[in-house]
Amino acid sequence: MGGARKTAACLAVGSELLGDHRLDSNSLTITRALARHGITVDEKRVVGDSVKRVANAIREMIAQHDLVVVTGGLGPTADDVTRDAVARAFDREIESDAEVEAWIRERYAELGRDMPEICTTMARVVAGSRPLRNNRGSAPGLLLEDDGRILAVFPGVPWEMEEMLERDLVPEIAGWNPGLSKISRTLLLGGVVESDTEVKIRHLYDRFDRENITILASYGVLRLVLSAEGDESVAGLQLDDMEAAFREVLGMDVAAVDAEDLPEVVLEGLKRRQQTLAVAESCTGGLMSAHLTDVPGASEVFLGGVVSYSNEAKEHLIDVPHEMLIEHGAVSEEVARAMAEGVRARFGSDWGTGITGIAGPTGGTEEKPVGLVHWAIAGPDGVSAKHHVFLGDRTIIRVWSLNATLDLLRRRLLALDR
Amino acid sequence: MGGARKTAACLAVGSELLGDHRLDSNSLTITRALARHGITVDEKRVVGDSVKRVANAIREMIAQHDLVVVTGGLGPTADDVTRDAVARAFDREIESDAEVEAWIRERYAELGRDMPEICTTMARVVAGSRPLRNNRGSAPGLLLEDDGRILAVFPGVPWEMEEMLERDLVPEIAGWNPGLSKISRTLLLGGVVESDTEVKIRHLYDRFDRENITILASYGVLRLVLSAEGDESVAGLQLDDMEAAFREVLGMDVAAVDAEDLPEVVLEGLKRRQQTLAVAESCTGGLMSAHLTDVPGASEVFLGGVVSYSNEAKEHLIDVPHEMLIEHGAVSEEVARAMAEGVRARFGSDWGTGITGIAGPTGGTEEKPVGLVHWAIAGPDGVSAKHHVFLGDRTIIRVWSLNATLDLLRRRLLALDR
Repeated sequence: MGGARKTAACLAVGSELLGDHRLDSNSLTITRALARHGITVDEKRVVGDSVKRVANAIREMIAQHDLVVVTGGLGPTADDVTRDAVARAFDREIESDAEVEAWIRERYAELGRDMPEICTTMARVVAGSRPLRNNRGSAPGLLLEDDGRILAVFPGVPWEMEEMLERDLVPEIAGWNPGLSKISRTLLLGGVVESDTEVKIRHLYDRFDRENITILASYGVLRLVLSAEGDESVAGLQLDDMEAAFREVLGMDVAAVDAEDLPEVVLEGLKRRQQTLAVAESCTGGLMSAHLTDVPGASEVFLGGVVSYSNEAKEHLIDVPHEMLIEHGAVSEEVARAMAEGVRARFGSDWGTGITGIAGPTGGTEEKPVGLVHWAIAGPDGVSAKHHVFLGDRTIIRVWSLNATLDLLRRRLLALDR
Repeated sequence: MGGARKTAACLAVGSELLGDHRLDSNSLTITRALARHGITVDEKRVVGDSVKRVANAIREMIAQHDLVVVTGGLGPTADDVTRDAVARAFDREIESDAEVEAWIRERYAELGRDMPEICTTMARVVAGSRPLRNNRGSAPGLLLEDDGRILAVFPGVPWEMEEMLERDLVPEIAGWNPGLSKISRTLLLGGVVESDTEVKIRHLYDRFDRENITILASYGVLRLVLSAEGDESVAGLQLDDMEAAFREVLGMDVAAVDAEDLPEVVLEGLKRRQQTLAVAESCTGGLMSAHLTDVPGASEVFLGGVVSYSNEAKEHLIDVPHEMLIEHGAVSEEVARAMAEGVRARFGSDWGTGITGIAGPTGGTEEKPVGLVHWAIAGPDGVSAKHHVFLGDRTIIRVWSLNATLDLLRRRLLALDR
């Protein structure tokens, strides 16, 4: 197959991935890492914890692909069958390896524990394969080359898998498909509705080819993934061209390029201005704080927040006037504004946000239905507020509220930049 | 294979399911529907839009399973190859069918539109198969029986797929595995480590059959899924027996049966005692509040919280003494205790929790490494505290901290019940 484009496949092992709750999400991480080097994943499989089934799958897949990445089934328990399945698929011996056992013992020692005897099973190595040290867990992985093809086997725990993928596999395949790398750029849009955006950008589909544009919508946030193939510099120019065209029609809706999510964008905006933020939350109940603090370095600008679920908390912790709560109710524009101002004053921050609404499933009335949410931003240049009746279940309403509030703050920060 | 247990497999067709963003979630719906009738899904695959690849996968899968459910690739465009792949896999003719074309025309008429000419391709029927009408979209599905095995092909759009699955497939397979319906019960364990639990329960594997016990571990929470097969009342008794045996060895580690997660369990415990909770969070940054308020009805017992990310917030909003922060540092047992007591006093709640730690990636020192977390519970019977150095990235450390704190509160509540 010399010179031909090389392809890959993913195999996830584990009966729990054949139930009705979990999907094999490791394959997404693997696909992304391989795509950076021009290798596409052409097939994915999931099989249960059976030596025979795993061995069969490996045999069939390695016959069709240059690279097969297997995840899961490497632990110490009886249902961890992947190691034995690899030995069977390639008809090779499997034997205990003292060095690998030492790795595992060291790992347990780091945790201040003795290695359970059961773990010696993880020190068995398939003849001719390279065992891969696991610095984030105890189960070693393995890499096996056979007739120019590679079988890589990683633990199913994403955090453990990711390290081995980058450290042990990527260097092996980085040169496989020179010049075929596919690169992409993601425009993050806030405060928009998918169908409106679709109408705005539709005329660009023909110009840039529909295949190179993917829209991913989630509640209050939209991602436009723009792709280009080929030599990196040429593809980069193509992406510049695409980005400019999309920015022209989308304007301020574009929150950022290649940003993870709105919290990063807002935190960046605050850092740029050296301003601080505190948040008051009712219906989102801590979700806004949690998302902001999920970003490393948030503490530089995020001072904290109050989850004022009860009226008493709104009064005593962030100074919402008692009469206001009586007169307008906790879910009102007045209270959202007072929360934003109150939390800003209490924390002494430059910006304060307030969110109050009815996330359901109960608590709605004809006048104030489930889904009604008021949000407000208090800042150096005053207070602004918006509201909407969001459709969806409790989780969806909370996420919409979070994103709507972050997006209003983003637009306020952007307006000050101009 | 008469009499033997029948099994199924799922095949999803579509290059978009081989990218780095989307997973085949139709298989979860299919798995659930089949499980109700005692049929387990033993394998899943995803392949791209190639006649050859789809045909190969169908051929391999139908040879190994009694039922293969294919989704996707039935539309009118050039990359919809599933219909042709079925014809090739079974070596059969494919021909236009006037009745099927009429269905599609009717569907477009309902939407007030003429059928585009391109759609006639969807009216082609594989010889000997039964076309399935689509009442929720335009692409027909198909059902093909061959040597006692069934191939079912549905559109990839979940809403369209679901209707055909229930209407056209379920009646065909409902009697396949009589008395083999499988029911399960999930024990939720908090504050445990997988390998320790594994050692405790290992002797039960032989007694109840390894296949009926699945362990699902996530940071600080473990789920033991116990399954039993057969007639519902017999299987129910078997589950009672299993649950009793597991409870005997696991004791207080068992937080609940068939509960979603620890927040539900803690909120239930509080409701039972008619007691209230307020939380103070530093490194979890709102995650604890967010998880608690994600549960409908949380407001009955959850009063709110403070995210005291900065030292000033710890001092001014929940009364952690300034000197204590100077002497012991923000990440210390003393401060965790003071946070729990302070938030309890401020909100006037029965219980208060405090969490302070270093989630990383930066901020660690030799004495206080990344992952060090202190948590405390203040309640009617006093204050207790624990600490640990959790391994993992920022997200993992935060989730561990959350679950460790919820679990300590759960155990405190349980102790009062006794």
